Amino acid sequence: MTETQSTQPESTAYDVVVLGAGPVGENVADRTRAAGLTTAVVESELVGGECSYWACMPSKALLRPVVARADALRVPGLSRSVQGPLDTGAVLARRNSFTSDWKDDGQVRWLEGTGADLYRGRGRLTGPRTVTVTVTGAAGGRRVLTARHAVAVCTGSRARLPDLPGLDEVRPWTSREATGAQSAPGRLVVVGGGVVATEMACAWQALGSRVTVLVRGESLLNRMEPFAGEMVAEALTEAGARIRTGTSVKSVTRENGTVLVTTDGGDRIEADEILFATGRAPRTDDIGLETVGLEPGSWLAVDDSLRVTGHDWLYAVGDVNHRALLTHQGKYQARIAGAAIVTRAAGEPVQAEEWGAHAATADHAAVPQVVFTDPEAASVGLSLAEAERAGHRVRAVDVDLSSVAGAGLYADGYKGRARMVVDLEEEILRGLTLVGPGVGELIHSATVAVAARVPIARLWHAVPSYPTISEVWLRLLEAYRDA
Amino acid sequence: MTETQSTQPESTAYDVVVLGAGPVGENVADRTRAAGLTTAVVESELVGGECSYWACMPSKALLRPVVARADALRVPGLSRSVQGPLDTGAVLARRNSFTSDWKDDGQVRWLEGTGADLYRGRGRLTGPRTVTVTVTGAAGGRRVLTARHAVAVCTGSRARLPDLPGLDEVRPWTSREATGAQSAPGRLVVVGGGVVATEMACAWQALGSRVTVLVRGESLLNRMEPFAGEMVAEALTEAGARIRTGTSVKSVTRENGTVLVTTDGGDRIEADEILFATGRAPRTDDIGLETVGLEPGSWLAVDDSLRVTGHDWLYAVGDVNHRALLTHQGKYQARIAGAAIVTRAAGEPVQAEEWGAHAATADHAAVPQVVFTDPEAASVGLSLAEAERAGHRVRAVDVDLSSVAGAGLYADGYKGRARMVVDLEEEILRGLTLVGPGVGELIHSATVAVAARVPIARLWHAVPSYPTISEVWLRLLEAYRDA
Repeated sequence: MTETQSTQPESTAYDVVVLGAGPVGENVADRTRAAGLTTAVVESELVGGECSYWACMPSKALLRPVVARADALRVPGLSRSVQGPLDTGAVLARRNSFTSDWKDDGQVRWLEGTGADLYRGRGRLTGPRTVTVTVTGAAGGRRVLTARHAVAVCTGSRARLPDLPGLDEVRPWTSREATGAQSAPGRLVVVGGGVVATEMACAWQALGSRVTVLVRGESLLNRMEPFAGEMVAEALTEAGARIRTGTSVKSVTRENGTVLVTTDGGDRIEADEILFATGRAPRTDDIGLETVGLEPGSWLAVDDSLRVTGHDWLYAVGDVNHRALLTHQGKYQARIAGAAIVTRAAGEPVQAEEWGAHAATADHAAVPQVVFTDPEAASVGLSLAEAERAGHRVRAVDVDLSSVAGAGLYADGYKGRARMVVDLEEEILRGLTLVGPGVGELIHSATVAVAARVPIARLWHAVPSYPTISEVWLRLLEAYRDA
Repeated sequence: MTETQSTQPESTAYDVVVLGAGPVGENVADRTRAAGLTTAVVESELVGGECSYWACMPSKALLRPVVARADALRVPGLSRSVQGPLDTGAVLARRNSFTSDWKDDGQVRWLEGTGADLYRGRGRLTGPRTVTVTVTGAAGGRRVLTARHAVAVCTGSRARLPDLPGLDEVRPWTSREATGAQSAPGRLVVVGGGVVATEMACAWQALGSRVTVLVRGESLLNRMEPFAGEMVAEALTEAGARIRTGTSVKSVTRENGTVLVTTDGGDRIEADEILFATGRAPRTDDIGLETVGLEPGSWLAVDDSLRVTGHDWLYAVGDVNHRALLTHQGKYQARIAGAAIVTRAAGEPVQAEEWGAHAATADHAAVPQVVFTDPEAASVGLSLAEAERAGHRVRAVDVDLSSVAGAGLYADGYKGRARMVVDLEEEILRGLTLVGPGVGELIHSATVAVAARVPIARLWHAVPSYPTISEVWLRLLEAYRDA
């Protein structure tokens, strides 16, 4: 420490130093600044992070027109007036506006409005409570930031590419290129079966690409109830995409612009682009973890206040802690970590009990997710398999959504399904999964029920409005009662 | 009783006799039959009731294409491909199919499937525990039904017309004609400002009519937060409808097919049809209430188990008790009344405490409603004004929905608003109101929160999925925290 300080005179002391200005870092800064702590935020790319420019926002901007069109086509009286395919240029232009053309002025203004100091450059831990920033741009140089109370690592994750020889020369798409492309490739191979793969397959198939999805396992969306992946795969296939399950990429090359994929079964597939949506890796490989005794490139284990095990000044918030790689869950953790930092800075006891103000309990029990495909798939809490693995005594009840009046009114030929997982000992919900058009906003009702541990008996008093799709709640409660 | 029986030998004994086979009567029958009680159901019109043929179902079938079209037009990439107005013929044909062309075979099969006996005809109380049916059709005659345990009056409500001379000859529309019309009138005057008036104005304006709404008060939807009516009125006006507030009908005539309306201000308006959506009256005027000491034509006061004050065998369920004139709330009451009847029949104690299995507590605290207009308006629980009148110490926080990322993605130029009413003593929600495209399925999350009295502190752990419109919850919680 002494040596570092002596060679680097440009040292500034803060209460809190935040590494990474994505939504997670922004929220930690917001909460600590709101309590009057001094806060520095270090960002090497765009303020606003992956979500704003290369993930949630652009992907949903691509998908919303796909879903709106599908919804319109399912309503007679309107279907005959919806002509032709989507206007891809207009959709991409709208996507560009949602990413502010990949400029972060607006988010910088917001961050500065909180009173946090923004350092543009790469930040690395250079010892306990110390971050050294290699400043980007003309000014350049290095700045040492010290943190009286906490350093929060909010650097997120990046796409993980498979270890295939020559992959760099293929210039494969990751989630960044898939959400940012300025035209639809004629043929797109999507490798993977998770949310990114599924959403991007849905978007680009609708925007004019011929999409082939290569899935190593037997199904899409395999972290949800099995019917979710099945129904989304069926719709993707109906939309014209090809889905090949049980298939891995053995090799991939690019020749004269064309991507040539060879599968493990020996088949060859040609494409114009290939998207690898094969998981995420933590962005912790170059942030100086080794200087505080942690493993570079590792996910960072934390307690429920998001504090890294064994370091009372170090927090890891968002994707980097591997609790739930979702923007909204990262923001939730950021609010809690921010509050915990503030409380500890004041020397007050944290409320670390389950569901307390300083415990991210929902990460274990009530994580929601919406897959913005057509049909939408949404879930919260545990699937049946997860609940059983966790040792809960549960029962799952299923309902065909087409039996709900509101669903039939929403769309002709409505196809959808719901599953509720009930804890038989506590008579509460452990999880709910919904698949079908228009269910994306409906899942929050289940999130409230799971997070608040509302007894089944009380859920009977939460009356769904007639005729909304929310009446699926009645069918689920009836199915549970009568099982 | 003795005399009645001696002159009417055709007497059949049941455990339960239900007057009216709308959704409410159907649910009372279902619950009592499921418990093994013998049940008779008497219906003078169509099994399925007002909701299935002349209210919720046809109105929502008319409105869904309007909303889907509006949604599509707000998404670039799609808006240019949506051509021309709605195909009114196709919309009306779909509406006809949702009402099964006003035939009740399907619902009769369902009711018979429960094992209840259906009597088609007019049922009247002819003394305690006794209903006499004037049978409809060729068979004719009268049947006396006796009820060992309960008679449930589920006869609902009808449109209330104002007392204007010569109104019959004008052949005005009520909700029945407005939801059932087989073509769009060129000019339609809508009298009233409630849900029926607002929804039908929205539907027919979109289906080709030139609509003029005459509202006695100063705003539409005046049982919701003021901004609901304001925003829906603004959208209706943009769609081309005329809204005249502070206006009553002084007289109305029909001459050569044309309706001539004179307002209290002396203006004359011509139209092809006129809809009176000016409230509801109980259908209790001709059901023999006088034979059991009750006032014909009155709303029937009940306790929370839906039992009529002073009559331990008589229940009034749904609109007739005037607690909440909504199909879903009537069905809720029916489930509770059915369970209460079964429990009392078994000689067991009812769970009459608040939110107990036999108390329709939600009627007082957590009634949801969705107005299926463009934009949608949805609410649950108490408005600010209602909460203050009820003596709660509350604070309202408002959020502009356009500040929510998911709303902006949903529709360009998204306009919407939310208000949360928080009880400052108990730190729970008393009510929530949402106005905007796509909010109809979102209100159920608030219904769960209000009905389960979820503390505000716990609602912070109910994480909305990013980027859905449900993130309005975060903005509301922040606004409350920072107020």
